[in-house]
Amino acid sequence: MRIESVDLYYLAMPEVLDVGDGSQDTLLVRVQAGGYEGWGECEASPLTSLASWVCPMSHSACKPVRDSVLGQRLDDVDDIARINAEVRANSLDLLQADHTLSGIDIALWDLLGHRLSEPVYRLLGFAEAYPKLPYASVLFGDEPQETLIKAREARAAGYRAAKFGWGPYGRGTVQDDADQVAAAREGLGPEGILLVDAGTVWVDDVAKAAERLPALRQASATWIEEPFVSGAAAAYAKLAALSGPVKLAGGEGSHTPYMAMHMIDHAEIGYVQIDAGRVGGITSAREVAAYADARDVQYVNHTFTSQLALSASLQPYAGYQAWELCEFPVESSIMARSITSRGLVRDEDGMVHLPDAPGLGLEVDTRAIWPYRVDVEIRVGGKTLYSTPPF
Amino acid sequence: MRIESVDLYYLAMPEVLDVGDGSQDTLLVRVQAGGYEGWGECEASPLTSLASWVCPMSHSACKPVRDSVLGQRLDDVDDIARINAEVRANSLDLLQADHTLSGIDIALWDLLGHRLSEPVYRLLGFAEAYPKLPYASVLFGDEPQETLIKAREARAAGYRAAKFGWGPYGRGTVQDDADQVAAAREGLGPEGILLVDAGTVWVDDVAKAAERLPALRQASATWIEEPFVSGAAAAYAKLAALSGPVKLAGGEGSHTPYMAMHMIDHAEIGYVQIDAGRVGGITSAREVAAYADARDVQYVNHTFTSQLALSASLQPYAGYQAWELCEFPVESSIMARSITSRGLVRDEDGMVHLPDAPGLGLEVDTRAIWPYRVDVEIRVGGKTLYSTPPF
Repeated sequence: MRIESVDLYYLAMPEVLDVGDGSQDTLLVRVQAGGYEGWGECEASPLTSLASWVCPMSHSACKPVRDSVLGQRLDDVDDIARINAEVRANSLDLLQADHTLSGIDIALWDLLGHRLSEPVYRLLGFAEAYPKLPYASVLFGDEPQETLIKAREARAAGYRAAKFGWGPYGRGTVQDDADQVAAAREGLGPEGILLVDAGTVWVDDVAKAAERLPALRQASATWIEEPFVSGAAAAYAKLAALSGPVKLAGGEGSHTPYMAMHMIDHAEIGYVQIDAGRVGGITSAREVAAYADARDVQYVNHTFTSQLALSASLQPYAGYQAWELCEFPVESSIMARSITSRGLVRDEDGMVHLPDAPGLGLEVDTRAIWPYRVDVEIRVGGKTLYSTPPF
Repeated sequence: MRIESVDLYYLAMPEVLDVGDGSQDTLLVRVQAGGYEGWGECEASPLTSLASWVCPMSHSACKPVRDSVLGQRLDDVDDIARINAEVRANSLDLLQADHTLSGIDIALWDLLGHRLSEPVYRLLGFAEAYPKLPYASVLFGDEPQETLIKAREARAAGYRAAKFGWGPYGRGTVQDDADQVAAAREGLGPEGILLVDAGTVWVDDVAKAAERLPALRQASATWIEEPFVSGAAAAYAKLAALSGPVKLAGGEGSHTPYMAMHMIDHAEIGYVQIDAGRVGGITSAREVAAYADARDVQYVNHTFTSQLALSASLQPYAGYQAWELCEFPVESSIMARSITSRGLVRDEDGMVHLPDAPGLGLEVDTRAIWPYRVDVEIRVGGKTLYSTPPF
């Protein structure tokens, strides 16, 4: 079959707030071929990814992403790999293309799964999908008291692990941050797995990060995530030498497998966090998982948006039983929660299961999300290159 | 003074061809503050960078680039560093932002140079700008005979160095490529510095690149550029171990200083090539130059577009006398050549001199480029976020 159409939909909350909540908008992708359809999502800045889809060619290695996708043959998994390679070569100098490719690639896997009546993880070569232990991904409260309440709520909701991040963390004093981490530990209880996300707040300043290590060790945090920006490998490696039992986690900013491999090889991280909606999709994420497996670094998804994005982010490491942790968004916006009619199932032990169903195993609810669409029109040289399509 | 306005202009040739010529379009940036103006350019895909400038906020770390620029204080060089840091933090998850920042940063340096009556290189801390030996940057011909003619023309035009790249190179047989390289050497003469650019054609396939090494050694090529994509450091390092006197060059795809540092530390390159229009501007490029200097890697600009972009790309390493080579575009489109009323001067020895004049030292010719403007309108949610401004 041939890829007949690709439709991109910009969805957003009516009001987007200036907070660290990445679920307030999304670019949803629908691919149609041979009577089947597949869905995917791109992280982040929907308008910019839209522009990279339709932009006029700049030169032979800077073409719009759609030029490498529309009309392509899609019969088996090798076709997805070929389309990936073409996008990467033809849009080499188009920086945003990796994010746009991510949503396209996810939709292609979903579509092929429907066509071949197989879950994506089986198309990826996994015999089965092992259940994952979800950590509730929540934002630090403005005050430790609020963090304490959030941690208690996560525990009461059955989460055995929780990650706290962004908000005031790293922006005040060392003591402020210690109080926040202690509150999270108290609310979670002594048995809970506590993870802390610094959200790149120290950029590449090792000293500032190192000051926070005693409180993290005191609270038995399992990891400190993104003390620095993705790519600042030397700073990561220096901090890792000081962090003792608290491992470093990072890599979500990787927009190619190479960037993630670089973090694995040179940043001394214990956990590599991959967002399938950024790294290039499921194809690239699977590549990183295999690389991490060979180097004793634990792979974990990065997902802060919808259940569709969550399913896409879990498929690439579903077959690795030892990598039990998974990020599970619990504070997603109503828009993000509306995208699928049902989400992934948590069993009585709180473990998350991927659907044993074709593709990503979830249904997109086009009626529920229609109110959140953002109408876009892009005109270049008097010609309309994009206007929001109907569902 | 405060940044009062930033105007972005999409310029393009009437017809953009599917060839490796990156000078066929550009996004020109004008910044105005305190009665002064500064100009810069962003690489590449003007529409996508425009979108990243005006896009609605996705969350606190994914804001449009303009939010971190408009209204900012701009009195000295520290202000430029602060604006850079704000863009990088506030647009952390907006992939395209680094390319957009690049043009903004260049324009800020130009503007500040005018305000302080100093060339940019002096504001960067260099006492003087040493002349550079330009290599003519040309595309391989479709056939070796055409390459031979181009090489002879470069030599006749006084170039003592020339780089051939893209076109058929790496896409045919090993013998085809050997013939192309031999033709370039023949046309250039035995004394000329010969550089070869593979344009990432082998992605990360070391074996394919290694097959081309004998012909490159035979022709005494000084470097083989971008055998692989930026980031594929392990492949670079493997090839470097085989390449003998032919050094590897790469890094033009770096959109942050970290990526370039990664290439310097782990790709075993002899030359790090930085495009100020991609890496984040002059600020980031200067940072890479200092890093390379401390590690015995030679810095060289990547420039394939206008003389404005060339001046911006030379300033960050103008003060390093030992780094003599510079890329000099000789096949730029008429649009790119129209951007400035005059270009950089080549003296009787063929050496290129930066102007001893404020800022980038070049005048943008708004009348000459007006015919090449591409009208753009971006509407989101019924509101016009961008439409092409007047000059």
